[in-house]
Amino acid sequence: MSDFGAYLSACQHRIDTYLTQQLQTGEPRLERLFSAIRYSVTHGGKRIRPMLAYACCEALGGRPERADTAAAAVEAIHAYSLIHDDLPAMDDDDLRRGHPTCHIAYDEATAILAGDALQALAFQWLAQATDLQANTRLRMIEVLATAAGPIGMVGGQAIDLGAVGEKLDLPTLEKMHRHKTGALIRASVQLGALASEQVSEEQLKALGVYADCIGLAFQVQDDIIDIESDTSILGKQQGADLARDKPTYPALLGLDGARALADTLRLQAIEALQPFAGDALRLRQLADFIVQRQF
Amino acid sequence: MSDFGAYLSACQHRIDTYLTQQLQTGEPRLERLFSAIRYSVTHGGKRIRPMLAYACCEALGGRPERADTAAAAVEAIHAYSLIHDDLPAMDDDDLRRGHPTCHIAYDEATAILAGDALQALAFQWLAQATDLQANTRLRMIEVLATAAGPIGMVGGQAIDLGAVGEKLDLPTLEKMHRHKTGALIRASVQLGALASEQVSEEQLKALGVYADCIGLAFQVQDDIIDIESDTSILGKQQGADLARDKPTYPALLGLDGARALADTLRLQAIEALQPFAGDALRLRQLADFIVQRQF
Repeated sequence: MSDFGAYLSACQHRIDTYLTQQLQTGEPRLERLFSAIRYSVTHGGKRIRPMLAYACCEALGGRPERADTAAAAVEAIHAYSLIHDDLPAMDDDDLRRGHPTCHIAYDEATAILAGDALQALAFQWLAQATDLQANTRLRMIEVLATAAGPIGMVGGQAIDLGAVGEKLDLPTLEKMHRHKTGALIRASVQLGALASEQVSEEQLKALGVYADCIGLAFQVQDDIIDIESDTSILGKQQGADLARDKPTYPALLGLDGARALADTLRLQAIEALQPFAGDALRLRQLADFIVQRQF
Repeated sequence: MSDFGAYLSACQHRIDTYLTQQLQTGEPRLERLFSAIRYSVTHGGKRIRPMLAYACCEALGGRPERADTAAAAVEAIHAYSLIHDDLPAMDDDDLRRGHPTCHIAYDEATAILAGDALQALAFQWLAQATDLQANTRLRMIEVLATAAGPIGMVGGQAIDLGAVGEKLDLPTLEKMHRHKTGALIRASVQLGALASEQVSEEQLKALGVYADCIGLAFQVQDDIIDIESDTSILGKQQGADLARDKPTYPALLGLDGARALADTLRLQAIEALQPFAGDALRLRQLADFIVQRQF
C-alpha cells in the first residue's frame, strides 16, 4: 500500500496546486470570499474524489492533465457541500478535519456564499475546459449537475434531515447514502472516465457498479470510524452521529455486521473492475484503502 | 403599456408552467425539498429575467420555446439567490413578495438545500437542452456560471456584506450592484440571445450595454421604491435597506438625483437597442417599465 500512498499523495498535490491556482482574485473587496473558499478547499481533505477522477482517466489510457478539470469540479462540489453541511442550521459542526469549520473561521454569511460560489465555479470550469470536446464537457456537466442536485447529493441531505430521530430500515438508509455521498462518488468516476475521451458505454457502466460499491463502503466505514476513533484522530466529535440519533450501519447491523458489509462491498467493487485488467490497479487499491482507513 | 402588460403576463404564465413541470418528484422522501423549491420559485415574482430571455430571443427572430430553458435557468439562479439572501445569517427577512420566506415557511436547513438544488438544476437543464447545439449550450452554461459565481452575483453579495455600515462612494456602489444584480440580468439577456442561435458578437455586445443600463436602473429604482412605498405594497418592511444602514442611491444622490439617474440609464438602454430597430419593442418597453414600476 505504500506505493498507493505515494500515488494518493501525488494526486493530492496535483489537485491542491490546481485548485489554489484557480481560486485567486485581484479584487480586494472579494478577497475575504476567496480566502474562505481557499480555506475550505485546501484544508487537508483526503481528495478521494479527485483521485477517483484521475485514476479512471488513467485506467482508460488518458493522461492525468486531461482529468484536472474533472477532479477540480468534483472536489469543488464536495467542498461546498461540506461547508453548507457544517452550518448551524444543518449539522452545526465547529470542527472539520481538525480545523474550525468555514462559518467558525469566517462567519455564517461568508460560509453560505463560499459554498454557493464553489458550486458555480465547478460548472464554469467544466464549460471552459476547451481541451475537451464540446460533447464531452456537456455530458460531464449533465452528470455532475444531476449528481449534485435534488435527485442526487442535495436530495440525500434532505432525506437525511427528514430521517433524524427516525428508525430507518436498511434499504432506506442505503437510498439516503446513495443520494448523499454515492451520487458524487459515481460522478467523480464518470467524469474522470469521460475526460479520457475514449470510454465505451459498457466501461462506464462497469465503473458505475464499482462506484456504487465503494461509495456505500465509504459510508459504512465512516460510520464504523465514527464509533471506533477518538476525537484527536477524527478531527470531529467521536460518536457525533450516534449522539445526534442519526441512523448508522453499526446501529442497524452491529459493528461486526457493518465490517462484514464493508468488506463485501469492497470485493464487489473489485469484481466490477475485471474488464479493465491491470489498468485499474489504482482503483482496486482505492477500494482496499476505503475499507481499511481509520480516519 | 397595457400591451406590454399582456406580454409580461404571457411570459410569466409561460415560465411558471414550464418551471412547475420541471419541479416535480415521485419520491415521497424528496417531496418536502421539492415543495420548498416550488414554493420559492412560484411565489409571484415579476419574472423580469425570464422575460428578458424571451424578448431577446424573439428580437433575434427565435421562437419563444427556444428560450424556455434559458428563462428557467436564469430564474432558478435568481430564486436560489433570494432564498439564501433571506436567511437569518444574511438579510434575515421573514417576508418576500408578501409571503413568508422559504426558511420561515419551511425551515432553515430546507431553505439552504432548496437554494443549493436550484443552482444545480439550472446547469442540469441547460446541459440537457438538446434542441440547442452543443456549443450554444456550453456558452450559455459558461455565461450563467460566471454571472452566478464569485466574480458575479455571489461576489456582489460578498461586497454588499462587507460594506454594511460603510460609507460607499458612487463607483463602489455601482461595482457592488453590477456584480450583485447586474451580472444575472446581463446573463438573462445573453442566454436569451444565444438561444436564438442567430446572434452576432456585435449584437451580443449591444445587448450587453442594454443589460448593464437596465440592471443598474433596476437597482436605483429598487432603492427609490424602498423609500417611497409602504409595506403593504412592497411585501417587505419599508425603508428596510436604510434601516440596516445599507448604502443606497437616494442616500448618495438624494431622491431627485436617484430618479434622474434611473431615467438617464433608461435612455442609454434604449439607445443601445438602435441596431435592432422595431424588433426590440419589448426590450424598449421593459426599460420603461423598470423605471416606472412602483413595486
